[in-house]
Amino acid sequence: MDERLRKQIDFILEIDKEKNILRQTHLTNKGRRENDSEHAWHMAIMAYLLKEYSNEEIDITKTILMCLIHDVVEIDAGDTYAYDEDAKKTQKMREDAAKERIYNLLPKDQAEELIAIFDEFEAAKSPEARFAHAMDNFQPLLLNNSNGGGDWKSHGVTKTQVYERQIGTKPGSDYLYEITDAIIQDNIRNGSLKDE
Amino acid sequence: MDERLRKQIDFILEIDKEKNILRQTHLTNKGRRENDSEHAWHMAIMAYLLKEYSNEEIDITKTILMCLIHDVVEIDAGDTYAYDEDAKKTQKMREDAAKERIYNLLPKDQAEELIAIFDEFEAAKSPEARFAHAMDNFQPLLLNNSNGGGDWKSHGVTKTQVYERQIGTKPGSDYLYEITDAIIQDNIRNGSLKDE
Repeated sequence: MDERLRKQIDFILEIDKEKNILRQTHLTNKGRRENDSEHAWHMAIMAYLLKEYSNEEIDITKTILMCLIHDVVEIDAGDTYAYDEDAKKTQKMREDAAKERIYNLLPKDQAEELIAIFDEFEAAKSPEARFAHAMDNFQPLLLNNSNGGGDWKSHGVTKTQVYERQIGTKPGSDYLYEITDAIIQDNIRNGSLKDE
Repeated sequence: MDERLRKQIDFILEIDKEKNILRQTHLTNKGRRENDSEHAWHMAIMAYLLKEYSNEEIDITKTILMCLIHDVVEIDAGDTYAYDEDAKKTQKMREDAAKERIYNLLPKDQAEELIAIFDEFEAAKSPEARFAHAMDNFQPLLLNNSNGGGDWKSHGVTKTQVYERQIGTKPGSDYLYEITDAIIQDNIRNGSLKDE
């Protein structure tokens, strides 16, 4: 096997570990905790199916790639819960180190390409990154809402915390943010989300 | 929420169940059994990274979509192990019924589009479908090989059975089939694969 394919396979086997990184979200029907690779798969399909709600024209291939690879860094950095303020302080540093190690398992051209896609996602300044962030928010929101908001309830999350995060959906999709807002209001009414 | 988005969300929540469909393949480092959504995520990233080895030019977006959605039918039909000859006899009938029910949760235009992509994958007659099949074979092969061929060993799989399946990689990628062949030969030598 030549060196290039060897490197590609090293990366492919390395990212298998993403299947063991657990998130705080639970699967529908009050299932077990979701892992990062499942979340990424779900987001990628959602991006394709919901692309008509993007505020701006998007390159769907790039958007899907962002969805698929955006959590690879969590193999080293771990999942940072959206409402864990302490962990969020060190998140960027941990994820930057992970990014360098993991993507650089690939041949140089592909490492550079994937790092650029990841950085673009993180910066959230392109139409594709904005829509991928909307998916990153909307996917766990749908799962959690299908479970009666249980993930918020068990962490004692407040409506302010949820709005702070979910506001990131608006630059990607005004329409999906409208739906998000209605879902949040439902969960405040039913007591799953603290109305402090 | 309008009817169209309601249908899209119904489908999105339905396919969450794919995360509970277990395959026979085990994760790297002798991990637990893999599920369909993890397999699909892994295949989609592999398709992007390994596209240079496709025998023919491919539309990478379509190929990635095929990888992402090809196992949705298993929510109803279950996973059919590649070397379970009895289960394979009823596989098409089970999967066709599942296809109609699940994809038709979507708005009509999207249901038709995804069914067409799934049918194209199944027929394995387009360059994209051929390469997606190569990924469908190569992904579990890499995981299993990383575990010393344990999945073959525990099922008493023979080299003839493996060659019958893995030959499907060749129309998608001669080069990846060469690597596949070398991996199979290694596993015959180390006794993981029965050399009958």
